[in-house]
Amino acid sequence: MTDQTQPTTPLLAGKTLLITGALDEQSIAWHVAKTAHHWGARIILTNTALAARMGKVRQLAEQLNAPFIPADLTRDEDVHNLLQQAMEHARGPLNGILHSVAMSMNIRKKREYPQIDYNFYQKTLEISAISLHRLLQHAWQLDALAEGAAVLTLTYIAAQRVFPKYNDMADAKALLESIVRNFGYWYGKRKQVRILAINQSPTWTTAGSSVPGFREFFTIAERLSPLGNASAQDCANLCVLLFSDLAAKLTMQTIHHDGGFTAMGISPDLLELLKPELFSETHNPSSA
Amino acid sequence: MTDQTQPTTPLLAGKTLLITGALDEQSIAWHVAKTAHHWGARIILTNTALAARMGKVRQLAEQLNAPFIPADLTRDEDVHNLLQQAMEHARGPLNGILHSVAMSMNIRKKREYPQIDYNFYQKTLEISAISLHRLLQHAWQLDALAEGAAVLTLTYIAAQRVFPKYNDMADAKALLESIVRNFGYWYGKRKQVRILAINQSPTWTTAGSSVPGFREFFTIAERLSPLGNASAQDCANLCVLLFSDLAAKLTMQTIHHDGGFTAMGISPDLLELLKPELFSETHNPSSA
Amino acid sequence: MTDQTQPTTPLLAGKTLLITGALDEQSIAWHVAKTAHHWGARIILTNTALAARMGKVRQLAEQLNAPFIPADLTRDEDVHNLLQQAMEHARGPLNGILHSVAMSMNIRKKREYPQIDYNFYQKTLEISAISLHRLLQHAWQLDALAEGAAVLTLTYIAAQRVFPKYNDMADAKALLESIVRNFGYWYGKRKQVRILAINQSPTWTTAGSSVPGFREFFTIAERLSPLGNASAQDCANLCVLLFSDLAAKLTMQTIHHDGGFTAMGISPDLLELLKPELFSETHNPSSA
Amino acid sequence: MTDQTQPTTPLLAGKTLLITGALDEQSIAWHVAKTAHHWGARIILTNTALAARMGKVRQLAEQLNAPFIPADLTRDEDVHNLLQQAMEHARGPLNGILHSVAMSMNIRKKREYPQIDYNFYQKTLEISAISLHRLLQHAWQLDALAEGAAVLTLTYIAAQRVFPKYNDMADAKALLESIVRNFGYWYGKRKQVRILAINQSPTWTTAGSSVPGFREFFTIAERLSPLGNASAQDCANLCVLLFSDLAAKLTMQTIHHDGGFTAMGISPDLLELLKPELFSETHNPSSA
Repeated sequence: MTDQTQPTTPLLAGKTLLITGALDEQSIAWHVAKTAHHWGARIILTNTALAARMGKVRQLAEQLNAPFIPADLTRDEDVHNLLQQAMEHARGPLNGILHSVAMSMNIRKKREYPQIDYNFYQKTLEISAISLHRLLQHAWQLDALAEGAAVLTLTYIAAQRVFPKYNDMADAKALLESIVRNFGYWYGKRKQVRILAINQSPTWTTAGSSVPGFREFFTIAERLSPLGNASAQDCANLCVLLFSDLAAKLTMQTIHHDGGFTAMGISPDLLELLKPELFSETHNPSSA
Repeated sequence: MTDQTQPTTPLLAGKTLLITGALDEQSIAWHVAKTAHHWGARIILTNTALAARMGKVRQLAEQLNAPFIPADLTRDEDVHNLLQQAMEHARGPLNGILHSVAMSMNIRKKREYPQIDYNFYQKTLEISAISLHRLLQHAWQLDALAEGAAVLTLTYIAAQRVFPKYNDMADAKALLESIVRNFGYWYGKRKQVRILAINQSPTWTTAGSSVPGFREFFTIAERLSPLGNASAQDCANLCVLLFSDLAAKLTMQTIHHDGGFTAMGISPDLLELLKPELFSETHNPSSA
Repeated sequence: MTDQTQPTTPLLAGKTLLITGALDEQSIAWHVAKTAHHWGARIILTNTALAARMGKVRQLAEQLNAPFIPADLTRDEDVHNLLQQAMEHARGPLNGILHSVAMSMNIRKKREYPQIDYNFYQKTLEISAISLHRLLQHAWQLDALAEGAAVLTLTYIAAQRVFPKYNDMADAKALLESIVRNFGYWYGKRKQVRILAINQSPTWTTAGSSVPGFREFFTIAERLSPLGNASAQDCANLCVLLFSDLAAKLTMQTIHHDGGFTAMGISPDLLELLKPELFSETHNPSSA
Repeated sequence: MTDQTQPTTPLLAGKTLLITGALDEQSIAWHVAKTAHHWGARIILTNTALAARMGKVRQLAEQLNAPFIPADLTRDEDVHNLLQQAMEHARGPLNGILHSVAMSMNIRKKREYPQIDYNFYQKTLEISAISLHRLLQHAWQLDALAEGAAVLTLTYIAAQRVFPKYNDMADAKALLESIVRNFGYWYGKRKQVRILAINQSPTWTTAGSSVPGFREFFTIAERLSPLGNASAQDCANLCVLLFSDLAAKLTMQTIHHDGGFTAMGISPDLLELLKPELFSETHNPSSA
């Protein structure tokens, strides 16, 4: 009975969380790890060996007194090993996972959606979506998630509407949200585990800012969202809430964490941003 | 068995349709009436007595050899009488209704959403949404809809996302779409009647163009929709399809008839329209 | 910067919340008031004078050391007075409101959806949906909501799909969710206020359990939701999260708090519950 | 101007359509080919060489005087060759494509969603979703779609809600619907081409009926849909409408063609089907 929980106990006290995808101070996962730790969680970090060399995840591990376990989430043996080691550190099953992994070579190589490379496309899906299934399937086999654990993943509204520059990542996010729903059913039945996707505002991370046109995109989203864009720190705060036991009945959905962006159509705020010459015609369009 | 239908028989041959809301050549309902007639339907027209005096619906009635029955769809006795007379003209139950009625005094009087007049608000809901329920409830009592009939109503995406200038009409359209779903269940079970809402592009009608900022709104929607805005004639064409027996299993949903607008997030097309000074900052937003 | 928040400070410390709709120990609002108080919030209670006489809200007020202010949320002067008094108690603007009010005379009088009474219908909308607009509009005028305040309301998935027994309340909830979105835009822009609807599992309250067939409905939802139904206490826990500053960028949406019910189609769990004779036919349906 | 179209001209006169996936008389694609032909279209058929040997598509080709071009839609060279040959037959670009291809080895081999084989999974995505992208990408390169052409694909509501037995096909359909949206943008801008997904009722085809539990599933959907399930012939009729020029502004969405199933929550119809012992408890669930 939650009424009995001491409100002065840190919200995530006693929980061990596995955090994927932290690279440097700009990463959402970096903020989630630090913030969850601040709210009482024990953290375990993972990323690829290459990312660990190029970024600063080992420094973060030191700061948070967290084990770092290298793993490539597209490889079965890596995932299996990661979860086994994590369970040893946790001395039992995990209370939560943050899945924060995405990459598109088609975007990097500027191959637009009608002219993608299908090997790149397969990699986009493998890294950005199927990796969540792989984590969950190995955790299923190893019984690596504790009763009531929460699994969170980061998505984008491009899973549901078209942002052409987001390219094949849109497809990956749609697939990811489907995995959230479908595995959410099985894990909910089995162990009351909750799986949620967070539709996060465009966020100024090392990965995000490499997308062509990201600055324009970030700026316009900031203007169109009634509350402005949600930052990486805002996202970390939300993750604390969703990892907590107070969210025990939330599952199998996408939470829109975007200052209201997704709920907006066209606002006067947008019209103000437009070039005035657009509206200089004096004819009645219906006469065209 | 539809396979046996002669493909040279006009699609709506043998059907009698009741069309509400035709005022003048700009009305969507005007186009629907003319186009459905062209495809073989017999038409019955209705509007308020006032609208009939101010507009040209009686001329249209003459053109189409259609009876005109004046009625205020917010009054039970008018609706009852309308349906009874329509059934007499049709010599039996109707094969379809177009509901195309909407009005907001809050918009006309420029009372913004946080400062609306609640009497106006009630009228907005009565005219723009509850009138559909009233039509359907009286038709239920009179058994005025034939087996497999189709009832179509016009909505706007503001029912699902925020367009602040659309004001309390957004609430009316959300209510309208709920009535479509709920009455769709009852009529589907009873007589295989189908009820559908059409989310139509902004359309240059007498009513639409009186909304403040409509021109800007129309222009930007035209630019953002991959196929451009759907016109009143396009809408009439779609209505022919939806009234036809070939759509016999479509019901209880909103069809987005908007050239793709609703499925769009932010596109490069939008960014091109923006004032360049918006993006002149050179600082990294994350450092803010 | 949330990182600086002491994790041992109760999550709602320093906040004053106005809670509508608490009647007795079964009310969701009762649980929200108690739980928010437990997490550090100061509570102000309101309900109609009649409800106060029939229920136990004054006892709750005593327990929580909370002022009780009687008000009928369908009357402008009551709402205005309620907010003014609440601000006096709070010595300033409020940090949150729970809107938890709904009533349908059509359901009580067993008038099914195709045969409703339109006076009852108008009351359903007034009490169950427009009351939220009224609260927000008066608060707008009085500037009664603090920067970053949260307004929560309870909805049901019948706003989006058809549950025939839910009758005209389905329409009221669709209208309510539209008000959440639309007012969410205006308040977000003005004061970073967040407005959210919670799609709550069927809950065994005094109001809920009076709906005909509620027991069957509750039982089947419990079986179909992978996590089981969310209880009134679960809902109160979620409200604590949503009222907290950690949710500062969540707004203008419906959060599905239902153990996964809304994300489900047909599951094997459902098929198990069905009468076996349903599936005894041996013919191939396609040959029919 | 559609008003000028002769209503006695068959709706698809002058159009050449490429139909994938016809196997035998039970296939939806079979019905689409026959019905579109009936409404005046010229048909080109394709399927794999294996399917052509096992099924009767060559007979259909004869009946409809249609060329049959064997192709495996997961192989670039096959798709390229298919489109080139089709354009030769059509003496120009095509006016429409029906994509009706899906297969899951995980379902066939009874590997449930938490224990799938990832090679099978990749094949599921390739055949059931990416094949649409491949068709569209090669058509883009060859300019194989005429101005205003329509591309239709078959999906299922499992793309949006969980039907556990549908397994990894749910993920494939979510991916497919994303491809519809995203390619819809590019083709809409380029050539006014429309791309639509049809969420079709469970249909008694050779493929469908092989899914374990399909009979139960079909039966329950039939009972829960207010209009009953849409049949393969119903689907063919809808395709005629969507291929026609009267639907020129419909794009980038999923049309629910399911007799109302998707819009339903829990109905009294469902409760009637349940075992009575489910509701025999006499205790108040809230006291548990």
